[in-house]
Amino acid sequence: MASPTTTRESHSESSAHRSSDRVREILSWYSSDNPGTKGNLARMLNHGTLAGTGKMVILPVDQGFEHGPARSFAPNPAGYDPRYHFDLALEAGCNAYAAPLGFIEAGAAEFAGEIPLILKLNNHDVLHDEKDPLSAVTGSVGAALRLGCAAIGFTIYPGSSMASKMYEQIRSLAEEAKRAGLAVVVWSYPRGSAISKAGETAIDVVAYAAQIAAQLGAHVLKVKLPSDHIEQEEARKSYEKYAIPIGTLADRVRHVVQSSFDGRRIVIFSGGAKKDNDEDVLNEARAIRDGGGFGSIIGRNSFQRKRPEALKLLRRIMAIYAGDTP
Amino acid sequence: MASPTTTRESHSESSAHRSSDRVREILSWYSSDNPGTKGNLARMLNHGTLAGTGKMVILPVDQGFEHGPARSFAPNPAGYDPRYHFDLALEAGCNAYAAPLGFIEAGAAEFAGEIPLILKLNNHDVLHDEKDPLSAVTGSVGAALRLGCAAIGFTIYPGSSMASKMYEQIRSLAEEAKRAGLAVVVWSYPRGSAISKAGETAIDVVAYAAQIAAQLGAHVLKVKLPSDHIEQEEARKSYEKYAIPIGTLADRVRHVVQSSFDGRRIVIFSGGAKKDNDEDVLNEARAIRDGGGFGSIIGRNSFQRKRPEALKLLRRIMAIYAGDTP
Amino acid sequence: MASPTTTRESHSESSAHRSSDRVREILSWYSSDNPGTKGNLARMLNHGTLAGTGKMVILPVDQGFEHGPARSFAPNPAGYDPRYHFDLALEAGCNAYAAPLGFIEAGAAEFAGEIPLILKLNNHDVLHDEKDPLSAVTGSVGAALRLGCAAIGFTIYPGSSMASKMYEQIRSLAEEAKRAGLAVVVWSYPRGSAISKAGETAIDVVAYAAQIAAQLGAHVLKVKLPSDHIEQEEARKSYEKYAIPIGTLADRVRHVVQSSFDGRRIVIFSGGAKKDNDEDVLNEARAIRDGGGFGSIIGRNSFQRKRPEALKLLRRIMAIYAGDTP
Amino acid sequence: MASPTTTRESHSESSAHRSSDRVREILSWYSSDNPGTKGNLARMLNHGTLAGTGKMVILPVDQGFEHGPARSFAPNPAGYDPRYHFDLALEAGCNAYAAPLGFIEAGAAEFAGEIPLILKLNNHDVLHDEKDPLSAVTGSVGAALRLGCAAIGFTIYPGSSMASKMYEQIRSLAEEAKRAGLAVVVWSYPRGSAISKAGETAIDVVAYAAQIAAQLGAHVLKVKLPSDHIEQEEARKSYEKYAIPIGTLADRVRHVVQSSFDGRRIVIFSGGAKKDNDEDVLNEARAIRDGGGFGSIIGRNSFQRKRPEALKLLRRIMAIYAGDTP
Amino acid sequence: MASPTTTRESHSESSAHRSSDRVREILSWYSSDNPGTKGNLARMLNHGTLAGTGKMVILPVDQGFEHGPARSFAPNPAGYDPRYHFDLALEAGCNAYAAPLGFIEAGAAEFAGEIPLILKLNNHDVLHDEKDPLSAVTGSVGAALRLGCAAIGFTIYPGSSMASKMYEQIRSLAEEAKRAGLAVVVWSYPRGSAISKAGETAIDVVAYAAQIAAQLGAHVLKVKLPSDHIEQEEARKSYEKYAIPIGTLADRVRHVVQSSFDGRRIVIFSGGAKKDNDEDVLNEARAIRDGGGFGSIIGRNSFQRKRPEALKLLRRIMAIYAGDTP
Repeated sequence: MASPTTTRESHSESSAHRSSDRVREILSWYSSDNPGTKGNLARMLNHGTLAGTGKMVILPVDQGFEHGPARSFAPNPAGYDPRYHFDLALEAGCNAYAAPLGFIEAGAAEFAGEIPLILKLNNHDVLHDEKDPLSAVTGSVGAALRLGCAAIGFTIYPGSSMASKMYEQIRSLAEEAKRAGLAVVVWSYPRGSAISKAGETAIDVVAYAAQIAAQLGAHVLKVKLPSDHIEQEEARKSYEKYAIPIGTLADRVRHVVQSSFDGRRIVIFSGGAKKDNDEDVLNEARAIRDGGGFGSIIGRNSFQRKRPEALKLLRRIMAIYAGDTP
Repeated sequence: MASPTTTRESHSESSAHRSSDRVREILSWYSSDNPGTKGNLARMLNHGTLAGTGKMVILPVDQGFEHGPARSFAPNPAGYDPRYHFDLALEAGCNAYAAPLGFIEAGAAEFAGEIPLILKLNNHDVLHDEKDPLSAVTGSVGAALRLGCAAIGFTIYPGSSMASKMYEQIRSLAEEAKRAGLAVVVWSYPRGSAISKAGETAIDVVAYAAQIAAQLGAHVLKVKLPSDHIEQEEARKSYEKYAIPIGTLADRVRHVVQSSFDGRRIVIFSGGAKKDNDEDVLNEARAIRDGGGFGSIIGRNSFQRKRPEALKLLRRIMAIYAGDTP
Repeated sequence: MASPTTTRESHSESSAHRSSDRVREILSWYSSDNPGTKGNLARMLNHGTLAGTGKMVILPVDQGFEHGPARSFAPNPAGYDPRYHFDLALEAGCNAYAAPLGFIEAGAAEFAGEIPLILKLNNHDVLHDEKDPLSAVTGSVGAALRLGCAAIGFTIYPGSSMASKMYEQIRSLAEEAKRAGLAVVVWSYPRGSAISKAGETAIDVVAYAAQIAAQLGAHVLKVKLPSDHIEQEEARKSYEKYAIPIGTLADRVRHVVQSSFDGRRIVIFSGGAKKDNDEDVLNEARAIRDGGGFGSIIGRNSFQRKRPEALKLLRRIMAIYAGDTP
Repeated sequence: MASPTTTRESHSESSAHRSSDRVREILSWYSSDNPGTKGNLARMLNHGTLAGTGKMVILPVDQGFEHGPARSFAPNPAGYDPRYHFDLALEAGCNAYAAPLGFIEAGAAEFAGEIPLILKLNNHDVLHDEKDPLSAVTGSVGAALRLGCAAIGFTIYPGSSMASKMYEQIRSLAEEAKRAGLAVVVWSYPRGSAISKAGETAIDVVAYAAQIAAQLGAHVLKVKLPSDHIEQEEARKSYEKYAIPIGTLADRVRHVVQSSFDGRRIVIFSGGAKKDNDEDVLNEARAIRDGGGFGSIIGRNSFQRKRPEALKLLRRIMAIYAGDTP
Repeated sequence: MASPTTTRESHSESSAHRSSDRVREILSWYSSDNPGTKGNLARMLNHGTLAGTGKMVILPVDQGFEHGPARSFAPNPAGYDPRYHFDLALEAGCNAYAAPLGFIEAGAAEFAGEIPLILKLNNHDVLHDEKDPLSAVTGSVGAALRLGCAAIGFTIYPGSSMASKMYEQIRSLAEEAKRAGLAVVVWSYPRGSAISKAGETAIDVVAYAAQIAAQLGAHVLKVKLPSDHIEQEEARKSYEKYAIPIGTLADRVRHVVQSSFDGRRIVIFSGGAKKDNDEDVLNEARAIRDGGGFGSIIGRNSFQRKRPEALKLLRRIMAIYAGDTP
C-alpha cells in the first residue's frame, strides 16, 4: 500500500488533527509509552495556536491553593470564577490548562472536550510554610479520568528533606497514569533547607531538577528560568572545567534542554511572578525559543492581567514560539 | 466576569475546539455522565468534516473478524493493512474509527491523538455460526484506555437466546467505561432463532433494538436501516391503531430516532453490505438526514471501494449531513 | 412537554418531612434494616399526594424495554421522552418513579432530589420470549447510588424453570443494597412452563408469589391483581377446607396482604394493561383499599393516557387511597 | 423531651419537592457530580424553612466530642440526649443536622428520612490539645450510607503542620463519597503553630481557608466569620494595593464568598461560641445575608439555649435569610 | 395475634430467654444496630444473676498482659489457670467474661455457649510503659467470631498523644464487628502526657471519656469511678456556672451516665485496684446503683480474692444492683 505517511503534507480542513512531522518526531521520543499516553501528548501538542509546532504554552492556575485567593485573583477579579481560566486558555489558544481538583471540577463539564486538561495532583498552601515542604496529594488518577484530563501534574521539591517521599509518590502515580493512557507533567522546583534562595534558580540546580524529573519518568518537565548562579561547589568545577556556556538566558535554557535527555523530553519554563512590563515576559520567551526550549507555562502573567491584555500578551508569546515574530 | 458563554459564537482559528451550540445541546442529554465521558463524546462530535454539526460518520472495520479477510478486504486489498483504515478515516474526515483489538493495536501509536477511536469489545466469527449467536468479549476497558480510545463499542443481538448474557456483559463493561470517562457505543442488531430474516430489519424490531440499547445506558446507538416490514403481531396492532408513519425510509428513521429517547440519544445507521451504486448509499444518507438521524456508520461501502472512490463517496455523504447538498 | 420549571410552588411549613404515626408503624416492621434503608422507605412513604398515609402509588415505566417502544409510547407519544415520566410522576404526586438504567440516567440529574427513584435492575424483552423467562441484570447497586435512587427494583418469575437463578440474583443484590441503605422492591410475577395462563393470576399463585418475595427479603412487594381461579390442586384443598374468602377482589387482596407476612410487608398491586374505562381502574383501587392493600403501581394506565387524563385518573386513584372519596 | 411524634402536621401539596429556580442554579455549579450527589445537595437545599431559597441553616452538634459533655450540654441539659438535636433541627426547620458517629447512630433510625444528615467523619478532643492538631477519622462513607446520610462532613485545619495529612484524608474520603452519590461538607478552620490566635479568623486566612476547601473538592464549605485582621504580610500587600473592601462584616463575607469560586460553591458561616445577646447573632446573620453568604451553621447558639429560645432564635435567623425581615 | 409485649411480665420456664421490658427498653436505644448486635447485647443482659434487670457485672481478666502474671495472679494462684476465670464468672453469675486472645482461646471450647465472652482486641504491657501509651491490637473480629464471643472489647486512652490512632482503630474494628453482629465494649481510660495523675479520674475527664467512647459508637462503655477533682479549666467554668452536682460518688456517677447520651448507652464502672475491705467495694456499687449506673466490671477485686470470698463479694454486689439489699 501507499504509505499513509506520504499524503500528510496537504492539511485539508478535515485533517486538522493530523500530527505534524515535528509532533511525530516528539512523540517518537516516548517510545516506551502506550498509544493512550502518546495520544494525550499529541492532544496537547495539537491544540491551540501552537498546534503542530512542537511548542507549548500552558495556562496553570494553582495559585489560589498555593498563595491564597486575594494574592492570586485580586489583580484581576474575574479570575475568582473557575470558568474564567478555561475560557482564557481556550481564547488565547493555549495547549492545555492545569489546575487543582476543585478548579477542574468546577468547569470540566461545561468545557468538556474543548481544551486538554492537566489535573494537578498535589498542592501546598502557605498557611503553614515549612523550610522543607511536602505538598499534599489532593487528587488521583481516577479523578483525572473521571474529569477527562489528558495528563496528571505533580510538583516535586528537589532539595527538600521530603524530596524522596515526593519522588515515591510520583513514581506510583505516574505508573498508574501511564497504565491508563495519561501523560505525566512534573513541576520540578528546587527548594528546601539544603538550598539557598539564589540556589533555587541556579543553573546547576535547575538543570539538575530537570534531569531528576526526566529520570522519574515525566513526559513534560516544567522548571523555573535559571540564573547564572551556581549553587553546588562540586558542580561549579564541571561548569568551569568544561566551559559550559551559561552567560545568556538562551545559553542557560539550552543547557537545561540538554540536561533533559538532550532535548528528548519536553521541557517548558515557568514565567514566575507577574511582571509589569510585557517586554520582560516576551524577552524571556525569545530566550526560551533561542535556547531550544519547548515553551512556557504562564500563570500569573496571564490570569492576573485584564483579559484583553492577557490575550494580547499570550498571543505575542505564541507568535514568538511559532516563529512569526522575532 | 464577562460570561464565558457570550464569546462562543465567533470561532477564531485558535478556538477550533469550542463546541457548537448543537454539540452543547447534545451533551446536555447525557447529564448523568461525568466530564470525562462528555469530553469523549465531544471529541467525536468535534472531529472531522462534520465537527460541530451534531452529525457523525464513523468508519467501522470489524469485518475481518466477523466475515473473514478475503470477504472483507479482497475488494480493495489495501485494507488488509490496518493502517489503511486509520488513514482513510482521517482523510475522509470521519468522526471516529471503530475496530477490534488487533486492528486498533496495529495503528494506535502511529496515529496517536489524530482520530477518536472506538475499541470494539466483542466480536463474533462465522467459522461457527449459531442460530442464536453470542459474541466473544475480546477487549477490555483497560485496553481502551491504554490505546487512547474515546469509546468502547459493543454488539448486542436482541432476539438471540443469548441476549441476556450480552446485556449483562455490556452492563458491567459500560459501568467500568463510564467510571473511566469513556463513551459507550452499542451496535444493536436483532438476530436469533426467534426472529425471521426479514424481521432483523423490520421497523418494529429495529425501533425496539434502539430502545433496548438506550435503556442499557448506551450513549451512541447503531442500528440497521429499517424496512417497512413488521415482525411482531402485538407491535403491528400499535403501528396500525396509532397510524405510525413508516411508508418512507425517512419516516422509519424518524420513528427509530423517536424510539431512541425521543431523539435524546445519538442514533446512527449502518450502511450494510457494499452497494455498487453510490446513489443508493447517498439516498440512504438523505433519508437518515430527513428523518432526523444523527449519521452513518459506513464500513463496507467505504473500505471495500478504492481509496479515491471511498473518499469521494464519504465526502458526498458528509455534505448531505452537513446540509451542503440536497 | 410542559417545562417542569414553570410550576414551582411556594414551600410549606418546615415540618413537612416528619413521618406520620402510620409511617412510623410501617417502618417498625423493618426492624432488621439499617437507618439508611428505613430512611429510603420513609422517603417514598413521605413523598407526594399520599405522603404520610402509608399508601403508595408508584409510576413504573419499563415497557419500552419489556414490550418495545411503539407498543409502549405510541398511545401517548410524549412518553418517548424519558423526562416526561419524571415530570408525570412528580405532577401526579406519585410516591416514586421506577425505570431501567437508560430512562433513569436520562433524567436523574435534571430531577435530582425531586422524586424518589427506583432503579429496575433486571429487564426482559420480547424479541426472544421464552416459555421460562429469565430477565437480564441490566443495572447495579453502584448505579443506583450514583443516580441517587431510593431503592432497587427486581423482577422474579416464580414458576419459571429459571426462578432459582433469579432468587439467587436478588439475594445477592438485595444484600448489597441493604448494606448501602437502599430499599428493595420486588416485582413477583408468576410465569413459566409450569403455570397456565390463568394460573399467572390465580389467587393461590399470586399469594404464593407475594410470600416468596417477602421471604426473599423484599421491603416492597408488587404483584398482579388476583383472579378467583385456583391453580394448584394441593392449594385448592386448603382454600376449600378453611373456606378462605376469595369471592370478591377485595377478599383476594386481603388474602394476598395476609400472605405478605400478615400485612407487615408493603404489598402493592399492578394495574396491568391499559383500560379504556377509568371506572375499571378506580374500582380496582377501591378493592385494593378495601382489602387492605398498600396501593398501586400504575404504568400503562397512566403514561399511555394523555397527560391531563393521566393526572386526573391518578389523582382520583390517590383520593381513593387517601380516603377522600369512596 | 417533648415527644417528636406529637407535632405532625398535615401534608402540603404534592409538588413540594420540586427544586426552585435558585436551587437549580446552585446545582448547576456542581456539573462534575453525579445525580446522586446533586440529589443529596438538593435534599438539603429543599428541606426545612429555607427550602428552595438557596440559603441553609445547619445544626451541628459535635461539641460533646470536641469540647466535652459538660461544657457542651450543661447550659441546656436536654442536649445530653442525642434525640434532642434531631428534634430541634426538625422543629426549627434546619436544612440538615450534622454530628459524629455516636450521635447519628443514636437517632438515625427513629428519625429515618425526616431530616438530611451529615456524618462528621473526623473529630478531635481537647484532652490532648496539640499546637498542630490532627483530628481522628472516626466515621466512614460506608457508615454514612448505612445511616442514611446525605453528606459526609470533614474538618481540616489549614495552618497545622498536619494539614497535608488532613487534605489527603478528605481527598480519599471525598472521592469515595462522590462515587456513592453523597455530598461533601468541609469545615475549614485555620489553626496551628504557624498562625496567631487572631490569625485564625483573619480575613486573609479565612478567605484562604475557603479557597482551600473548594480546591479540595468540597460541595459545601464552612468557615468562621472573619475579622478585619490580616495575618499574612504577603497577603496584606494585595488587600492594600487592590483596596479590597473588608471594613464591615458584610464586606468580609462578600470577599469570602468571592474566594469560594466567585460564589459558585455554597459557603456558610459558623456562629462560634454562645452569645448571650440574641441581637448579636441576628446581626451576624444580617451581615452574612448582605454579603451574599449562603447561611449559617449554628451549634452552640441553638442547642445551648433552652428549646423555646433556640427555636425562636433559629426562626428569626431563617426569617433574615428568607428575606422576610430586615 | 395477641401482642407479644403483653405477656412478658411473668417469666415462665419456657420463656426464660424472653427479654424483660427493661432489657427491651435498653435494646431500643441501639436502633441503628442489626439484630445480630442487638442479640449479643441481649445475651449479655439476659445472662447470670442480673439477667433481665438491665444491670451488668462483668469479669475482666487482662491484668496478666497489662501488669504481668505475678502481680496479677500470685494473690490467688488458681487464677494462673485460664479456666479458673470462666468458671468464676459462671459461678458468680456474671453477665460476661472479658479477656485477651490467649485466655479466651484457653477456655472458649470447654465453656462453649455457657457464658457471653468479650474478646479484648488490644492490650498494653508495662515492660515498655510510655507517657503517651498506645495499646497493640492483639485480636480481631474474626477471632471473636471463631471463639464464639458476644462482643469485642477495646481500650482507648483519651489524653494520650496517640489517642487519634486508637480512635481510628476502634472506628474500623467496630464497623467490622457491627457488620458481623457483635457488640462493642470500649474501655475509655484517660491517660497521657496532657493529663495529671489526678486528672485521670477527674469528674470532667471521666465524663468526657464516656462521651468520646459513646461518640465512637460503643454499645457498652467502661470508665473509672470519678473523683471530685476537675482537671480542665474550661470545664471547671461550666461545672461551677451550672452548679453540676459532683459532691458524692453517686452524684458523679449520675453525671457520667448523663454524659453517656443521657443514659442511653450502657455505662459501667471499673472497680480498680484490689481493696482489702469488702465494704469499700460494696459502697462503690451502692453509689453506682444510686447514680443510675449500669453496673461494674470487677477484675482484681474478684479474681485476686480466694474463690469463696470472691463469690461471696460478687453475689453481694449483684444483690445491690438487683435491689435485693440496700
